[in-house]
Amino acid sequence: MKYRIGIDLGGTNIKLGIVDEENRIIARGSIPTRAERPYQEVIKSMADLVLETLAAKEISLEQCETLGIGSPGTVYSKGGIVVYSNNFNWKDVPLRDEMQRYLKLPVYINNDANCAALGEAVAGAGKGRKNVVLLTLGTGVGSGIILDGKIFEGGHPGGAEFGHNVIRMDGELCTCGRKGCLEAYASATALIRDTKRAAKNNPDSLIHSICPEGLDSVNGTTAFLAAEKGDPAAKEVVENYINYLAEGIANIVNLFRPDLVLLSGGVCNQGDVLTVPINQKLKEVCFGGEGAFIAPVVKATLSNDAGIIGAANLS
Amino acid sequence: MKYRIGIDLGGTNIKLGIVDEENRIIARGSIPTRAERPYQEVIKSMADLVLETLAAKEISLEQCETLGIGSPGTVYSKGGIVVYSNNFNWKDVPLRDEMQRYLKLPVYINNDANCAALGEAVAGAGKGRKNVVLLTLGTGVGSGIILDGKIFEGGHPGGAEFGHNVIRMDGELCTCGRKGCLEAYASATALIRDTKRAAKNNPDSLIHSICPEGLDSVNGTTAFLAAEKGDPAAKEVVENYINYLAEGIANIVNLFRPDLVLLSGGVCNQGDVLTVPINQKLKEVCFGGEGAFIAPVVKATLSNDAGIIGAANLS
Repeated sequence: MKYRIGIDLGGTNIKLGIVDEENRIIARGSIPTRAERPYQEVIKSMADLVLETLAAKEISLEQCETLGIGSPGTVYSKGGIVVYSNNFNWKDVPLRDEMQRYLKLPVYINNDANCAALGEAVAGAGKGRKNVVLLTLGTGVGSGIILDGKIFEGGHPGGAEFGHNVIRMDGELCTCGRKGCLEAYASATALIRDTKRAAKNNPDSLIHSICPEGLDSVNGTTAFLAAEKGDPAAKEVVENYINYLAEGIANIVNLFRPDLVLLSGGVCNQGDVLTVPINQKLKEVCFGGEGAFIAPVVKATLSNDAGIIGAANLS
Repeated sequence: MKYRIGIDLGGTNIKLGIVDEENRIIARGSIPTRAERPYQEVIKSMADLVLETLAAKEISLEQCETLGIGSPGTVYSKGGIVVYSNNFNWKDVPLRDEMQRYLKLPVYINNDANCAALGEAVAGAGKGRKNVVLLTLGTGVGSGIILDGKIFEGGHPGGAEFGHNVIRMDGELCTCGRKGCLEAYASATALIRDTKRAAKNNPDSLIHSICPEGLDSVNGTTAFLAAEKGDPAAKEVVENYINYLAEGIANIVNLFRPDLVLLSGGVCNQGDVLTVPINQKLKEVCFGGEGAFIAPVVKATLSNDAGIIGAANLS
């Protein structure tokens, strides 16, 4: 049996999985990242975690074909370099070469959202599909694009950033400094902002009774809960959110024409409430209408494992 | 010497070029398309034009390696089929196979904007670059994306349509039926619309004196002319136009990270007036800022020959 190792390098934890030939995670490891340390120490900790996890499962390094790492930020995958990561304050970190000082096997790195998309494409909701786009709706909007079975990165590092596709120029300020990005409308952060705004503008809204401790407790499900109970202000928030997301996905379809668009992150637990109207709207707005192929939008299935399995499938 | 044949299948004319190994057009042919005819007749005319042009130059079909055709509309390149062309009222036309009934050589087809981008990448302003995006600013906004030297088409036909990337949702109605597409702001048609609007709202604007015969004579240069003379209303039109285009190009950069972005079409004759502020704005709004690679935006150089040379380079 041959194995591959996948690491999801997160801002809080480093999560590791040993993945078998059928893309099952057969052993796991996890340690705090402590990202404030020098990068050399973080990478050394990752290498130690690999060796410990293998030892505990009595698997040798020689039984492992590859090690893949999904890193946040801008990654130059061919060079094995993390060009820039805001979370870690990393700049031009030679992640691949540094890791290969400790572990003698082929090491590949890529952006974490790209890895999650690849994981879903090989073993999750996109299994069997060659062209899959994944949007992660969380603090920000991450995107990973798989074309012909491979991660699409564009010509230079810093591409495939669908979260920073402007859908409403001069609109809401985005974390990237630009105004009107998809992330500024379709992230959970944006949804929470809009829910709070609606509550402030509507003192009678059910949003207040759902959050008796105050608007600080508004989260990504608050508006959906209040809308379900018929609250007009919350309904408007949900409707707008769905429209923003649908416009962003229509842009994806017009450019990438994937087989499937997957949504992950807490917001996508809304399921049909989210996906049914989005799928309907795509038929109305995508270029070429129903004469051209329009990808179904569905929920991703692997959750946090997507990044690990995707990293293990890097090559 | 080996040759390749490129055809630019336009709504008005079919333009043909015999292209040599250095991508020079060494012979040309052109006939009216008469697109109202059955597709079989249009294709037969193209084949006749090929044979006539070759005969006039005393080149045999055997000396030609390939024939490429750039067609408007949605093209399924692998299948050799024009899925849909509004200009021709074509639907699922087997262009490649029909052409090969007449000419025994490998025939390739692709979308016309894709061919133009490929032409510029191999022989024009993008020569020597592997990752090039071309925007044609005309009646609409066409786009062609070259990645790693090849035409980027996405997973299914109907992709790579940057003209239909929404930059301002709920904005101006686009020809595609959607609201707020780049095409609805950055095409020459949109510029003319905005120039006319500015003139109507500003009876004292110089736009009126530039068009003494009335606003029907407004064209893609009118606003630039009036702005140059200091007209405030025209200045605003030009400034907005540049901002729209820059937002669209920033979206391209954030996704495709090309080496170069090329502009073609009448509007791009404005040269530096257009490109200098766009290049400046990209540095401000692209994801990753100046830490990531931001493609320079320059004028395309091959004009109408781009489509012919690109078609000849299809494979």
